[in-house]
Amino acid sequence: MLTVLKGNILHMPACGRYDILENGYLVLEDGVIRGLYEQLPEEMRPLPLADYGDRLIVQAFTDMHLHAPQYAMLGMGMDLPLLDWLNTYAFRTEARYADTEFARRSYRQFARDLIANGTTRAAVFASLHTDATLILMEELENAGVSGFVGKVNMDRNAAPYYQERTEDSKKETLRWLRECERFQKVKPILTPRFTPSCTDELMAFLGELARERNLPVQSHLSENLTEIDWVKRLHPDCELYWETYHKYGLFREGTVMAHCVHSGEMEQQAILDHNVLVAHCPDSNINICSGFAPVREMLERGVWVALGSDVAGGAELPMMRVITAAIRASKARRIESNGRIPALSVAEASYLATTAGARYFGFGDGFSVGDPLHALVLDDSRLPEPARVLTVAERYERLIYLADERSIVARYADGALLA
Amino acid sequence: MLTVLKGNILHMPACGRYDILENGYLVLEDGVIRGLYEQLPEEMRPLPLADYGDRLIVQAFTDMHLHAPQYAMLGMGMDLPLLDWLNTYAFRTEARYADTEFARRSYRQFARDLIANGTTRAAVFASLHTDATLILMEELENAGVSGFVGKVNMDRNAAPYYQERTEDSKKETLRWLRECERFQKVKPILTPRFTPSCTDELMAFLGELARERNLPVQSHLSENLTEIDWVKRLHPDCELYWETYHKYGLFREGTVMAHCVHSGEMEQQAILDHNVLVAHCPDSNINICSGFAPVREMLERGVWVALGSDVAGGAELPMMRVITAAIRASKARRIESNGRIPALSVAEASYLATTAGARYFGFGDGFSVGDPLHALVLDDSRLPEPARVLTVAERYERLIYLADERSIVARYADGALLA
Repeated sequence: MLTVLKGNILHMPACGRYDILENGYLVLEDGVIRGLYEQLPEEMRPLPLADYGDRLIVQAFTDMHLHAPQYAMLGMGMDLPLLDWLNTYAFRTEARYADTEFARRSYRQFARDLIANGTTRAAVFASLHTDATLILMEELENAGVSGFVGKVNMDRNAAPYYQERTEDSKKETLRWLRECERFQKVKPILTPRFTPSCTDELMAFLGELARERNLPVQSHLSENLTEIDWVKRLHPDCELYWETYHKYGLFREGTVMAHCVHSGEMEQQAILDHNVLVAHCPDSNINICSGFAPVREMLERGVWVALGSDVAGGAELPMMRVITAAIRASKARRIESNGRIPALSVAEASYLATTAGARYFGFGDGFSVGDPLHALVLDDSRLPEPARVLTVAERYERLIYLADERSIVARYADGALLA
Repeated sequence: MLTVLKGNILHMPACGRYDILENGYLVLEDGVIRGLYEQLPEEMRPLPLADYGDRLIVQAFTDMHLHAPQYAMLGMGMDLPLLDWLNTYAFRTEARYADTEFARRSYRQFARDLIANGTTRAAVFASLHTDATLILMEELENAGVSGFVGKVNMDRNAAPYYQERTEDSKKETLRWLRECERFQKVKPILTPRFTPSCTDELMAFLGELARERNLPVQSHLSENLTEIDWVKRLHPDCELYWETYHKYGLFREGTVMAHCVHSGEMEQQAILDHNVLVAHCPDSNINICSGFAPVREMLERGVWVALGSDVAGGAELPMMRVITAAIRASKARRIESNGRIPALSVAEASYLATTAGARYFGFGDGFSVGDPLHALVLDDSRLPEPARVLTVAERYERLIYLADERSIVARYADGALLA
């Protein structure tokens, strides 16, 4: 069935560029984009029309790295250094998801808030618990979020109350993979927490599983200097951190690596060569003082970078806030480099939270013909009255800085208008 | 008349410290704080009680630097460098306030949004226009905001369409001062925009006026390096920027200087010696790439620092967002200094947005006996369900990171509960 959306269409087929159709038309066939038009073709005039008037129709967001069971501790413990934060807050909070009733309530709120804030596709870390992970997948799918979810694997160096035995980790991973065959839109992704928390045996098992079943992988890479030193001590045979994943077959096409704050030229080249996606998490990098990620260099090198909220190292779930966090982090880096390294523009950072992430889920660039629609309708009438008439691009940029979920007045995920 | 507020009282009489009364009582006499009690004294039990239950009662915020006529351009032009931003956005937007009808609408929204976000006292830049400045003062007073507002003086180096002749600037300043005698809670503050935009003659006039009428002064100091070079060329007799104000009697007890990003030891010492208040504007400093302000050093030296939103160089009006911006800016500085300079804690940054600013308006530390009440009641039930019971301090910190005006369920300004 054909339907038409009308409004000010702004999308980002290329990094740093807006394509704008003022009072344009977006035509769908069974939820799949069939075309974008400045004028609606004669034969389409009788089609059912959702007229969004002067509002903006933009791409929905993607979040390439976040920890669902840390949503319960969002904005907490932000004064603590990383390891204390992990022990005092993160592990204790995640352990709570052994309680499936709590998990159900918490994940329902999490999924609902993702959608409310316009994130329709995501790559998510769950906890160690198979049952709670399945609940998370269920809640995401019910809410309209698609993407990947990983049961976390962790069989060393965590907390006595929150760690698996190697055998259990393997067994539960297999059970989880069997159980999650029932989901349509939320798929499993193998998730060794990070090198320090997985034994060689477990890493080898997961790498083999990734190869055999062609499963994607997500983990953390070169987030902070203490962690990097630790990894070096654990794997003295590896020159660089990425090799500790590579030697077990976990650093491959379709792998998502969060952070890469301290990835130097050689590691960046390895990321590029393996077509690994870097999930840049600007708010987290500042909050837990990891450092300034070399985003500009990675983009210039051709590395595939997309944004992640990294809830709850990041304290912001809405990708609009993560976009501005990425801009601000890049400006901090511009300051630190005495103006040498240019900051990200709003258009660039927005691309990293839309098209760059969407590619991971198989989508084309911008609003692309043949893709199921993932879109948001934005209303800026809540924002301060401007001093003159604004362009569509100015209106979009102001929304990115100022809007919250109240300015998102309609959400399309996977071709369907969400209730 | 005596009244009682009940709730979880958290206030900050000292920098970096919370004083907490769980389920405590705050007793007012005609809106003025008479005492804080863990248990309500026997004789006060019959008094009228506002029971806020499990909610938090905290100090209302102060904003020590912001440009009211830039609220209309909040979140815009953020990709531009400072001078382009001023010319393309700031001056053009401010010029719009020649239209008193627009000014009335815009300032009404501005004042209402300040209160909605819990800012009850502020030091505000208006535009060049006397009439619009008076409208701003009226709207602030009507909304319940008290503090200082300045008609801006600017007789050189601005835009042809937005600049005063020296004589007009003087004459209009005097007219403005006469007219604003009618306000009770919003008082005038002399406001030379910054050294480059005022002739020596105008600076001397304003300095004389400050001395004669004992008026406070606000301006900008050492915000960015290009500006500092410019000031040096304009005043070759002055070694440091602050001296360009001092030589006209404008750098004195009660002066507010915004930014001080590049104030070195000697300028910091001058600030301390003259008891000048530094309005630290972290979001603005990052947005327009001014630099990282030496807040930790200034605090250790004993300099009086309080936070400002610097709307619209800052893109955030809510002081809760400015507090987290100050923490994040301090963490960027911690990163830049390889961990040498400690970041601000939530308690420290909160102090800078409450008690430190309130002192400027004559208030004591924290909830202080004898002060009219400026308080907010915060409700955290909208936030994600936590994984365990939180302490009052944890609940406060989480609100600072996550809340918006919807979590502020009551506002007291100058002793009165606002509608």
